[in-house]
Amino acid sequence: MMLKIGFLGPEGSYSELAAKIWKDRGNLKNVHFVSSDTIPYLVENTEKGNLDYSIIPLENSIEGTVNISIDALIRTEAKIVGEVIIKVNHCLAVRPETEKINLKTIYSHAQALSQCYHYLMSNFPEIQLKAVNSTSEAAKLVAESRENCGAICSVQAALKYNLKIIAENIQDYPDNKTRFIVLSKNDCEPGIKNKTTLVIALPENKPGVLYKVLKEFAEYQINLTKIESRPTKKELGEYLFIIECIGHIQDYELNKVLTNLAAQAVLLKILGSYPVDEEGYK
Amino acid sequence: MMLKIGFLGPEGSYSELAAKIWKDRGNLKNVHFVSSDTIPYLVENTEKGNLDYSIIPLENSIEGTVNISIDALIRTEAKIVGEVIIKVNHCLAVRPETEKINLKTIYSHAQALSQCYHYLMSNFPEIQLKAVNSTSEAAKLVAESRENCGAICSVQAALKYNLKIIAENIQDYPDNKTRFIVLSKNDCEPGIKNKTTLVIALPENKPGVLYKVLKEFAEYQINLTKIESRPTKKELGEYLFIIECIGHIQDYELNKVLTNLAAQAVLLKILGSYPVDEEGYK
Repeated sequence: MMLKIGFLGPEGSYSELAAKIWKDRGNLKNVHFVSSDTIPYLVENTEKGNLDYSIIPLENSIEGTVNISIDALIRTEAKIVGEVIIKVNHCLAVRPETEKINLKTIYSHAQALSQCYHYLMSNFPEIQLKAVNSTSEAAKLVAESRENCGAICSVQAALKYNLKIIAENIQDYPDNKTRFIVLSKNDCEPGIKNKTTLVIALPENKPGVLYKVLKEFAEYQINLTKIESRPTKKELGEYLFIIECIGHIQDYELNKVLTNLAAQAVLLKILGSYPVDEEGYK
Repeated sequence: MMLKIGFLGPEGSYSELAAKIWKDRGNLKNVHFVSSDTIPYLVENTEKGNLDYSIIPLENSIEGTVNISIDALIRTEAKIVGEVIIKVNHCLAVRPETEKINLKTIYSHAQALSQCYHYLMSNFPEIQLKAVNSTSEAAKLVAESRENCGAICSVQAALKYNLKIIAENIQDYPDNKTRFIVLSKNDCEPGIKNKTTLVIALPENKPGVLYKVLKEFAEYQINLTKIESRPTKKELGEYLFIIECIGHIQDYELNKVLTNLAAQAVLLKILGSYPVDEEGYK
């Protein structure tokens, strides 16, 4: 049987790299990778079962954005079944014949340009920065160009387009990581250490409402790893909350907290309980 | 004297639209608009006083992303002095001679493609979606193309490139809005209704830490309008919190809360107290 894994394209993106790590980690065979330019396409086709897995960025993403992922997750019946955390290694890559001293323009995704901004300003104070749609598109553009230009891209993208890497790990925060989540139609088996992602909307937007929610988690000593308010779309300023915590919905304590919250919430949706990527957090 | 206002380019972006609204609202004269592809450029040049104001997206952005804005704000001494909320009106625009029935490809920014995904799938189930760097770049590309293609872009961008608008307000959530913040070197005068944005980092990442922070706000009946955890960059999984609340730092209650929090926090940084854009929230 063929397994289909979708990722946020284009080819050579960090999302593709995360998809390959997911394949290797699960020792998956007969895998066919599917690239898409839009996160809702990936999420919907996973829900329908057309894709066995899809990999989308959730935090500190370079290709695509968190907000779209969150919005798509709120609407879908697909479940989060895993996470893949990869270290960002932005390279400055040029054609083999280009000399560093002659560089006039550097292309990359707007987020990668921003992430390397201080490196670029220290080393190339006069350089022109141009934003394109992705880091791998920047690599392709440089490979096909005749200008004295460079791309900020991953090592993989530089290799793919036969570029010469003249600097590695040039992002301003050396330990920059991107967190991807893995979606599937069905829930997964609990791991040794698990994480749960959920969305909650409360009836009123009054002072202290979120405080009451967090009180439930605090009373059962459950550690939150992420919290974010998100406009409900009906009115900017009315929010729902995305919460991530350590534990599985089958755990006694977390189950208790969720039962208490369900009684107060307008909406409580579990996006998934899944094993923590402990390697990625190292 | 000439006033310089920076915005996140390219020209025709929603950020430029927000910059023009800011100019009109303040009845500013002799304004020179400066376009940049990177948020850190705008923020740093505002801090240095090279730009009098800069306008960057903070929530539900189409061009650029929230995360880069937040990261840049954490590092800068520039202050938030205002907000501009604009209604997103995504149009489908084509060259005057293109018939809707012949459309093969639609170009836009990945976020705009995702925001209009259900409209696109219902009306053009076979269409090819292609992500480019911005909505205005999509409009330009369509204007210069010979294919049967369309762009999802703002009304302004469609007009700028002489495109014909064949559908308006095609985003899946009709009330979609984008919130921009306005930065300046100096603080601003309080308005009638104000909002304060701050960043706080706490010494431990234990259960209940955020709960203690929110308790302070709840006790003084201060309404939070936004809360978000953000990795500290040292280690993915260690977070700081971005909090927005109603009120001005000169208000007695908020001042009291901040004094209490300062005693517990590793970092407490006020990014600005500024008038609420009440028109935008309507």
